Amino acid sequence: MCRWLAYSGSPIMLEVLLYKPAHSLIDQSLHARMGVETTNGDGFGIGWYPDHHGEPDHAVEPAVFRGVGPAWSDQNLRELARCVRSPLFFAHIRASTGTAVQQTNCHPFRFGRWLWMHNGSIRDFAAYKRDLALAVDGSLYPHIEGSTDSELMFYLALTFGLEDDVPGAVERMAGVVEATAARHGVADPLQMTVAVSEGERLWAFRYSSGRASRSLFFSTSVQALRALHPDNPVLQLASEDARIIVSEPLGDLPGAWNPVPESCYAVVQEGHDAIRTFRPKVG
Amino acid sequence: MCRWLAYSGSPIMLEVLLYKPAHSLIDQSLHARMGVETTNGDGFGIGWYPDHHGEPDHAVEPAVFRGVGPAWSDQNLRELARCVRSPLFFAHIRASTGTAVQQTNCHPFRFGRWLWMHNGSIRDFAAYKRDLALAVDGSLYPHIEGSTDSELMFYLALTFGLEDDVPGAVERMAGVVEATAARHGVADPLQMTVAVSEGERLWAFRYSSGRASRSLFFSTSVQALRALHPDNPVLQLASEDARIIVSEPLGDLPGAWNPVPESCYAVVQEGHDAIRTFRPKVG
Amino acid sequence: MCRWLAYSGSPIMLEVLLYKPAHSLIDQSLHARMGVETTNGDGFGIGWYPDHHGEPDHAVEPAVFRGVGPAWSDQNLRELARCVRSPLFFAHIRASTGTAVQQTNCHPFRFGRWLWMHNGSIRDFAAYKRDLALAVDGSLYPHIEGSTDSELMFYLALTFGLEDDVPGAVERMAGVVEATAARHGVADPLQMTVAVSEGERLWAFRYSSGRASRSLFFSTSVQALRALHPDNPVLQLASEDARIIVSEPLGDLPGAWNPVPESCYAVVQEGHDAIRTFRPKVG
Amino acid sequence: MCRWLAYSGSPIMLEVLLYKPAHSLIDQSLHARMGVETTNGDGFGIGWYPDHHGEPDHAVEPAVFRGVGPAWSDQNLRELARCVRSPLFFAHIRASTGTAVQQTNCHPFRFGRWLWMHNGSIRDFAAYKRDLALAVDGSLYPHIEGSTDSELMFYLALTFGLEDDVPGAVERMAGVVEATAARHGVADPLQMTVAVSEGERLWAFRYSSGRASRSLFFSTSVQALRALHPDNPVLQLASEDARIIVSEPLGDLPGAWNPVPESCYAVVQEGHDAIRTFRPKVG
Repeated sequence: MCRWLAYSGSPIMLEVLLYKPAHSLIDQSLHARMGVETTNGDGFGIGWYPDHHGEPDHAVEPAVFRGVGPAWSDQNLRELARCVRSPLFFAHIRASTGTAVQQTNCHPFRFGRWLWMHNGSIRDFAAYKRDLALAVDGSLYPHIEGSTDSELMFYLALTFGLEDDVPGAVERMAGVVEATAARHGVADPLQMTVAVSEGERLWAFRYSSGRASRSLFFSTSVQALRALHPDNPVLQLASEDARIIVSEPLGDLPGAWNPVPESCYAVVQEGHDAIRTFRPKVG
Repeated sequence: MCRWLAYSGSPIMLEVLLYKPAHSLIDQSLHARMGVETTNGDGFGIGWYPDHHGEPDHAVEPAVFRGVGPAWSDQNLRELARCVRSPLFFAHIRASTGTAVQQTNCHPFRFGRWLWMHNGSIRDFAAYKRDLALAVDGSLYPHIEGSTDSELMFYLALTFGLEDDVPGAVERMAGVVEATAARHGVADPLQMTVAVSEGERLWAFRYSSGRASRSLFFSTSVQALRALHPDNPVLQLASEDARIIVSEPLGDLPGAWNPVPESCYAVVQEGHDAIRTFRPKVG
Repeated sequence: MCRWLAYSGSPIMLEVLLYKPAHSLIDQSLHARMGVETTNGDGFGIGWYPDHHGEPDHAVEPAVFRGVGPAWSDQNLRELARCVRSPLFFAHIRASTGTAVQQTNCHPFRFGRWLWMHNGSIRDFAAYKRDLALAVDGSLYPHIEGSTDSELMFYLALTFGLEDDVPGAVERMAGVVEATAARHGVADPLQMTVAVSEGERLWAFRYSSGRASRSLFFSTSVQALRALHPDNPVLQLASEDARIIVSEPLGDLPGAWNPVPESCYAVVQEGHDAIRTFRPKVG
Repeated sequence: MCRWLAYSGSPIMLEVLLYKPAHSLIDQSLHARMGVETTNGDGFGIGWYPDHHGEPDHAVEPAVFRGVGPAWSDQNLRELARCVRSPLFFAHIRASTGTAVQQTNCHPFRFGRWLWMHNGSIRDFAAYKRDLALAVDGSLYPHIEGSTDSELMFYLALTFGLEDDVPGAVERMAGVVEATAARHGVADPLQMTVAVSEGERLWAFRYSSGRASRSLFFSTSVQALRALHPDNPVLQLASEDARIIVSEPLGDLPGAWNPVPESCYAVVQEGHDAIRTFRPKVG
């Protein structure tokens, strides 16, 4: 079980969210409160879209920094968090469910402009991993670098058109996982919270085949965010549309966090954030 | 805060003690029960004296294997524990109190035939680290590779004659630490459980300036050890004098473990194990 | 381009071959003489079968130790080489041709009792990696942990019956690689020297589709080996059937090394070593 | 033997100098041309002062990113070099002369606003390491994190007033090293090229006790720099005062590089770069 955080809003230093809050994501690497595993020490990663200071975005790839040690003791992560400013970033801390602790298994995963990160698992993955891998497009397959279910889910979603229709592709991915699992006699195979972005919009999915999905929260509004850190000048300058989505609430402010409902996804985008129903698709 | 284990007895595979018991040392790296920090994920180390199959010991150095990641996910440690057999070995899992996570800060430390490992700390170490370092013999000083108080304590003990009189040298080391701390106005500076060996005997010290030392236990007898693993053929063959000393009891057997008393040290040696009083010496 | 060494004979300490000879394998990690790449600093690995001191072999798995840094500076490798004694071991130093530097891409690869290591590559691998992966048996597929062509070649050979007929399975693997490459319009796809063992016998293959295979040598006889280290007591005690197979000769003894001929394989086994022709098989 | 690069001028992306030129610093990690060791694979580091887009500098610390693997295969370094822009940065690739490969031994070293990096060594350092360490101020001593001569030279220079008078403090450091070595009967002890900065000015020293110093070059003028990369738009925009100082010339442009003369130092600063004589000072 992992923990993750996604931010979209006016550019902020990464450390503002990764290190400063009470019960920050980095704290959660050592002591998470929710979920089965309370230590998330099997690697970490951050992915961020550059801060262009108002200049037009020349469609650059996001940058990714990943490490195999625990986040809490990584000096390089601390340095970067102190000097990287971004309007949209992902952060992930990993608790391996068995696959190797290596950079290529650390989230977020990147493909072109796309970032993907995941908390959850595919039940009895080994039993039908090959079947799922065969469903990945031949031109995408060699880009798979690691051995996790999470990365394979990303490449399945890319195969099913993630770049054109994010929710549709994720729903087809989930449908294929469930259908393949069913053929192998595996019930309730999928457990996931997933974040996806291409640098403009941010999607966050909460779903599990058994309708008992892992926790996922979004910050209610920038007012709540500001209240969370009344003394933080950066946050006082945050744009009205700033949003944080997290596996576990940061800080201790009642009212600041809303759960993403079961079998739903949130989309954060200019002008009209929304929460919609998620339903796996077959075929 | 760290955790450690030392074994002396008939040769056994390391995994028998490191992985097999309930609440094994490797489990403690993820979930310790006692002490302030419950995660010990800032590196680990094992040190072992070779198994000579009854052949005379040609005074070889012990081997040391140390890693900077968490013990629980280290594949190489798992491999070694499965194939290394030893009559006397140390194992240590680290929770850094601030110094860098690097191999040269991982225990056990080695000097010639000697192994040393430590759980504890020197309070306000930075304030008088230079004073303590100056007390190390000039020929020993360049052998210091890391930056921990633990390694410096080892080199102070070596300076004070560890190779000739183990308890005496450790008592002088403790005396110098306390005297130096006092000159800097630091009260109750020393907190330690320490294991030392030269391959024949095993010493385990429990001491703190404030007489509130961290936990340390020794196995009562090989009968208790056998009872701990009734189905383990290796342990059924263990010699009568086998001993385990640990920061936290392994397994769940009432009566199997005795605390080392406050301000005492245990010595495990052929024929006559003993527990004696520990008293820091000045001058 | 990588370098490797395999040894079969009476049990010896690993350091005797890994560190002691002039131009040892560890030296080659920093300065190889032959081949395109002269630095092999992208990880390393050793795999060894236990030394049973004449006791019957209880069919244990070989042990594997792999690291992602350069072999030349790895302290743990140096420690192990000094204390591990084995009658049959593999050692490999890696120069990545693009895939990630991670333990799961380091050789030797292990499956049950089997070890496999490789020097070479599959040309334009990405273009038909998925096709080759699909040829791996579904029960074996989830055991693939890394992303290299080398590991995939191993799993193809396992799929084709490596455990029953080593040369036949490797020939079928080569045949499938060449046929798949041909379907993608890739000429001369395969370049390989491969070592395989199950703990009793040792096979070493030298082959390339274009008949310009990388170098591979075997030690002529134990006499040559002894001459290589006249002062080494371990080697003076080596059994008559001891053999070393290497990418590059160790030491500087004229006459000590013979090349494995182009498109051939050597098998080292009790009583009757042999060199035979290698011919990829299709179908 | 190590290699380093320092840049001062208008802000540029790090990759422009670290990866893009022929014979770039990253290339030199695998294949250097000059000096004894041609592989510099024992760790690396970069240190950079933030790009403030013309805003006033609030005296922030430079950021440091260091890794223990070879620079040539580090994915995180590649990512950072692609997205970090700086007006003044250091980069260093390490070839250890014996001390441990660990982050705390990687350059550049930082103290407050100061960065320091070194290529060279102190002869027979172990023989008088303690004497040199004793010369470090007690309040600075606990900040020493690693075990290299290079870091100790930095702390000696800080002890001798680096923050007030850079050349004077480095000259006193060199004087103390030479005097201490002389007391231990060691001739020609010091070999160094050193870069120092506080974020505004950049000093580069070339000195050795035996007057046979390792190579050090500075770019002649921004015209030469532009000529080095005629197609690079960033460099075409470089300010007139941009300077690069390197252990080995980048690119293949005759006339682009001048050696720093023996026993001299260069200072790059607003308005008046200069080259001056370096002379160790005693007392």
